[in-house]
Amino acid sequence: MTAEDLAHRRHQALAPSYRLFYNNPVHVVRGQGVHLWDADGRQYLDCYNNVPSVGHCHPTVVNAIAEQAATLNTHTRYLHEGVVRVAERLGDRLGGALGSAWLLCSGTEANDLAIQVARAATGHYGVIVTEHAYHGNSTLVRELSTEDNQAAARPNWIEMIDPPDMYRGQYRAPETAATLYAEQVAEATRRLARNGHGVAALLVDSSWDAPGVLVAPDGYLNQAADHVWGVGGFVIADEVQAGYCRLGDHFWGHARYDLLPDIVTMGKPMGGGHPVSATVTTPEIASAFAEHGSYFNTFGGNPVSAAAANAVLDVIDEEDLLANATATGAVLQAGLQSLAQNHALIGNIQGCGLFWGLDLVTDRGSRQPLSPELTEGFITLMRNKGVLLGATGVHGNVVKLRPPLPFSKANASQALETLEVVLSEFAGHGA
Amino acid sequence: MTAEDLAHRRHQALAPSYRLFYNNPVHVVRGQGVHLWDADGRQYLDCYNNVPSVGHCHPTVVNAIAEQAATLNTHTRYLHEGVVRVAERLGDRLGGALGSAWLLCSGTEANDLAIQVARAATGHYGVIVTEHAYHGNSTLVRELSTEDNQAAARPNWIEMIDPPDMYRGQYRAPETAATLYAEQVAEATRRLARNGHGVAALLVDSSWDAPGVLVAPDGYLNQAADHVWGVGGFVIADEVQAGYCRLGDHFWGHARYDLLPDIVTMGKPMGGGHPVSATVTTPEIASAFAEHGSYFNTFGGNPVSAAAANAVLDVIDEEDLLANATATGAVLQAGLQSLAQNHALIGNIQGCGLFWGLDLVTDRGSRQPLSPELTEGFITLMRNKGVLLGATGVHGNVVKLRPPLPFSKANASQALETLEVVLSEFAGHGA
Repeated sequence: MTAEDLAHRRHQALAPSYRLFYNNPVHVVRGQGVHLWDADGRQYLDCYNNVPSVGHCHPTVVNAIAEQAATLNTHTRYLHEGVVRVAERLGDRLGGALGSAWLLCSGTEANDLAIQVARAATGHYGVIVTEHAYHGNSTLVRELSTEDNQAAARPNWIEMIDPPDMYRGQYRAPETAATLYAEQVAEATRRLARNGHGVAALLVDSSWDAPGVLVAPDGYLNQAADHVWGVGGFVIADEVQAGYCRLGDHFWGHARYDLLPDIVTMGKPMGGGHPVSATVTTPEIASAFAEHGSYFNTFGGNPVSAAAANAVLDVIDEEDLLANATATGAVLQAGLQSLAQNHALIGNIQGCGLFWGLDLVTDRGSRQPLSPELTEGFITLMRNKGVLLGATGVHGNVVKLRPPLPFSKANASQALETLEVVLSEFAGHGA
Repeated sequence: MTAEDLAHRRHQALAPSYRLFYNNPVHVVRGQGVHLWDADGRQYLDCYNNVPSVGHCHPTVVNAIAEQAATLNTHTRYLHEGVVRVAERLGDRLGGALGSAWLLCSGTEANDLAIQVARAATGHYGVIVTEHAYHGNSTLVRELSTEDNQAAARPNWIEMIDPPDMYRGQYRAPETAATLYAEQVAEATRRLARNGHGVAALLVDSSWDAPGVLVAPDGYLNQAADHVWGVGGFVIADEVQAGYCRLGDHFWGHARYDLLPDIVTMGKPMGGGHPVSATVTTPEIASAFAEHGSYFNTFGGNPVSAAAANAVLDVIDEEDLLANATATGAVLQAGLQSLAQNHALIGNIQGCGLFWGLDLVTDRGSRQPLSPELTEGFITLMRNKGVLLGATGVHGNVVKLRPPLPFSKANASQALETLEVVLSEFAGHGA
């Protein structure tokens, strides 16, 4: 079957709200490590996918899933060690204070439950989120994913703060930005107090993925958290993107701020592709929620999901993928900085570890963003040269690099060399 | 490790809102077909689990998962045939008119999306649900799961109707019950019109699981649907419990009513234990929703989830599990009726196919429900004799039988014989 035939069948059978990547979608049939292959046998370097966090089809994860699927797959209303072990290991990695976990199926479910828990335990209703964030797609979490919602359509229990953007944001002076951005959180808490909702939670993705892969100024999250804690609210760290070594140096994104959130959510990288997620909090908060009733998730924490989650943690440790993310991240950073020096199309590079954004501009002085269409054209050119990337950002002009964690320095060199070629081609076309 | 040690570790690491089945929980370590084994090697006949719908660890499903996990596991933003094939097959089984699908991870996600779709496409906000129903646990769907919510705490866009209970409900005369129960839907539509919400959807599980595994009188759903369609609302058939041959005779629960819903949701039995679910609707409704934005589900419809879903459909066809559900269901029905004749503890038997409820009473005249604690004692006695069942119902007094679909007539005989023994023991204790 040709890709065109398959695309036609897909268009008939799947809802039209589905989208495909690239102007010419990739028909993938095989994955291994940091590579994907299409139906014609063409190899691609995967610089985009964080779900197969330890590499596509890692044998440790595949074997764990296959073996457990052949042995037992039930649910958490029977005793089984797998789910207990995942929960214990997540608690350990969160330093021991956050030791009470729920296992679920998706980041959406994890964030939705986190808000339910925060509301039940604080007795407040309001939620503070970053403008243009994405946290999932349940009815509640879609409302909190301001990427998808016009400001005018939002209920008044949601308060938005600016992403801490040091390139396009309203506060860019390094010495004052952290305080000024955090002051927006304080203002949000005051508005939520005035309208009677109070603050249940500040929900924050510490990689600020959808707004453009941002790095906040030092101390920002600490000051923001203090404002929230001062009015009895919780800080929920959405680690769906930032967690699991993604940002280098630390296992968790929030650890960059030496901050202990009240609730941590995680998902995408957790099962190497298997649908598994978690919400973790303190025993006290978990107990407060339990007073409001039981919570059961049919598939969440089943033996196979637990086996996948345990295997991913095993591989991260055995292959020291945190050190790799840090080391390859440094190579990527240096290479991207070098590209930025030679190519005016790159207005800014932002990110850390194995998560980088290239903010593309038509003019460095005005910082005019490249159009989403041309940015899509850029990543399609990269795809045609065998390197898979994505696009993100408020203006749809940020090229996103977020490869599997085993991404090597040689892989980084290939990605950088291909970027060099496409940046030169793009400049030649007067874009 | 002993079950006590494991239970202690579990209590430390998992949130206290988790619950275990039975007064002495089962520490399961292996499953095959309709059997589970605990850590001591004891075998149990599984008369409860519908998630391993084609039997625990069915080799076709296990191999499909293992093979696809070793080959590729990405997401729906690349072209892949697996997800298209699942969607096509579900559309075919729904008769062709409902041919546009979303693949997701859980029944909760499927029902949450169904409501989002109904609201977007109808322009209405109100939802009609059955009292004491369970539809999932996102913020929205938990509100709609009236099993978990006090009536006083519900917002006025939710309208409740009685479950069509022919044993305990307010309308029991066979000749008028369907019309009288359906009239409650008409009243709900009028209240939602008056308070300005209108009717987005009637959300209904046609096995009425949580209210006690009920069978509605002929024509009930048709009349209810007509009331909803008359005011521009949608009928959402929640097939998470009733679908996939569970009720015998038909693949879908709603097919018992010769009714075409606007949206169908499914989950639990769909992947043989793998977290996969779906929301399916007409192309027109799917297009109306797409005008409100995109929808992406990271894990939903990934190649492994699709492989699991396709394998389950293969097994259902190859082993003709629909015919088995119908045939074994008839044996169960006859056996349960015979037990009811001899044991006054059974007030009523209700259900069909491989889904049965035994409404236990202390007195047949008054229909006084057995207490939840004694019902729990009853299913614990069954567990101790190697047969796993559950408890459900408004009063927590309904013993639930819902075995995997390959449940044989010999399995049914074993379950019935064990029930006979426990019913006799129970009577001997004066319960």
